[in-house]
Amino acid sequence: MSLAIGVDLGGTNLRIAAYRDLAARADAAARGAGGDAPVPVVQHKEPVGEPRDPDALIARLAAWIERVAAEAGGAAGANVPVGIGIAAMLRDRRGTVANSPHLRWRDVAFGERLAARLGARHPLGVYNDVNAITYGEYGLGAAAGAQNVLAVYVGTGIGGGLVVDGRLAEGASNCAGEIGHVKVAWDDRAAPCACGGRGCVEAYVGGSYVQRRIRAELAGGAPSIARDIATRAGDADVHAGHVDEAAALGDAWALGLWQELAPLLGVSLANAIALVNPERLVLGGGLLGRTPVLRQAVVMALEVAAPGALLEPLTIVEAALGDDAGLVGSALLAARGVSTIAS
Amino acid sequence: MSLAIGVDLGGTNLRIAAYRDLAARADAAARGAGGDAPVPVVQHKEPVGEPRDPDALIARLAAWIERVAAEAGGAAGANVPVGIGIAAMLRDRRGTVANSPHLRWRDVAFGERLAARLGARHPLGVYNDVNAITYGEYGLGAAAGAQNVLAVYVGTGIGGGLVVDGRLAEGASNCAGEIGHVKVAWDDRAAPCACGGRGCVEAYVGGSYVQRRIRAELAGGAPSIARDIATRAGDADVHAGHVDEAAALGDAWALGLWQELAPLLGVSLANAIALVNPERLVLGGGLLGRTPVLRQAVVMALEVAAPGALLEPLTIVEAALGDDAGLVGSALLAARGVSTIAS
Repeated sequence: MSLAIGVDLGGTNLRIAAYRDLAARADAAARGAGGDAPVPVVQHKEPVGEPRDPDALIARLAAWIERVAAEAGGAAGANVPVGIGIAAMLRDRRGTVANSPHLRWRDVAFGERLAARLGARHPLGVYNDVNAITYGEYGLGAAAGAQNVLAVYVGTGIGGGLVVDGRLAEGASNCAGEIGHVKVAWDDRAAPCACGGRGCVEAYVGGSYVQRRIRAELAGGAPSIARDIATRAGDADVHAGHVDEAAALGDAWALGLWQELAPLLGVSLANAIALVNPERLVLGGGLLGRTPVLRQAVVMALEVAAPGALLEPLTIVEAALGDDAGLVGSALLAARGVSTIAS
Repeated sequence: MSLAIGVDLGGTNLRIAAYRDLAARADAAARGAGGDAPVPVVQHKEPVGEPRDPDALIARLAAWIERVAAEAGGAAGANVPVGIGIAAMLRDRRGTVANSPHLRWRDVAFGERLAARLGARHPLGVYNDVNAITYGEYGLGAAAGAQNVLAVYVGTGIGGGLVVDGRLAEGASNCAGEIGHVKVAWDDRAAPCACGGRGCVEAYVGGSYVQRRIRAELAGGAPSIARDIATRAGDADVHAGHVDEAAALGDAWALGLWQELAPLLGVSLANAIALVNPERLVLGGGLLGRTPVLRQAVVMALEVAAPGALLEPLTIVEAALGDDAGLVGSALLAARGVSTIAS
């Protein structure tokens, strides 16, 4: 039996899980065998809370990793690799955090410090959270069996990850997959994005921007049954799900909004497909799951915009591992020794 | 001494060259040593001409490969890998040509048939021509030493290639790098492209489209000194180089045209960079080389549109190997056993 530990260090929660024989299971899944979502042998979840400075969190993480490893058992003396998916911009493959607004960290040698703490028994890999999620879906989720994968998550923002020829593409500076910040507008009216740029697809179709847009247009008097739908559902705020229901019922304002936004995401996806030629596109995240009408319009726009030869090998699938994708992916990456830090 | 043969099978010329110790030289170049463009020990060039049906060309290629291998010497009995860069859409990694308008081929088992003809002494790899060119620049040209490379060639059309973590990204169906067909317009006025799609960046900034646009606007009476520049140079037609000279002299029409086109290519490059996070962007092809004003505007647009974190590791360089890049790249790919066909 071989153990690997995955950690999901987000802005809200710290999660940790130990898995058994993950690499062997992923190998089997790649051959088309198996396929159940992996169940951790031990898991733990707690709020990140405060203090969240590097010293405090590194100490907590090391303690939890050692505790989970002990509880999971495993052969005496055997290494237990640890992978951490972190909501941060990384600078290198040694887990240096360039910036994490969620953790309020800047230029922290997180990976090296934690690796030194854990010692040789726990080979450590630190990954961007969306990359870890993507790799989880690739290894044991919706993209198992594929070798070239684009995963795109449309939640509050828009993030993406790439697997190229069976290997996670991290890029020159760990920033590969930044599909949320491809530009869909570049004139004077291009929408400002929280990243500091303008015209990013996220600034139009990212969940928080869509929410803001809905609120502003309805406050401005847009006529729509979305308000009634929200009221009937007992929701104070009209959200994208209500707008999607309104669109399904033929509401002109809702349909108009979706018809404006869908091509922006659809074209961004098509352009990414033209570049990397994946056989699997994984769509996930909180927004598209509750907006089936928008999702369908996005896929239609994608199919119009992508060259036919690139659509031929492509299958579009839903993310399958849900909130566990990052835990599975980071554990699997570490189990396979991807970008692990020599301590 | 180890030999490898590169073949460049275009629509016009058939070129073939044998190189010595190419993989060892590329390894040295990756470490920062060496760096002169490789010189073939034997080379040959002839027009593709007619007949260009698969039977005829496979026979000619096999004969030339054997002749060049014999002339190049090499150890008795040693394998001489052969890489072919072909101006074609490939269907798989066994050299099946889905479509080559240049050769007028459709669904030709080119790789397998040629591999059977060549036998075990010549392990054969068949590559998309732009991929081979990209790999040449990566291995022994302008991108030597980089591990993540985007190469974009703006000639008659626009083609691209990707190296991800030191490996050529061919994609699920050999179509990776199709940056010419990313969409920069998706409304009713989006320009039709020869690919059958609309709004492709190639349909705006590809050389043949730029040429057509220049001709149409000048025929329509656009006031510009580009005509005089062409006349003084003794050229019957005004081409992009003349327009660029006019732009450099402040010609309003020329500047306006470049200001319209530059962001389309610049944003396409920036969006590709956001996705794959390369440390080297290689720009090549016939158009940008003779339009320095346009090139500069493209780079400016790219730098505005790309997220800062992705510009940080990036260097933009000119293609260095010229017409030999495809020969070098295909020979190097075969020497390294990339996608070679088991015969």
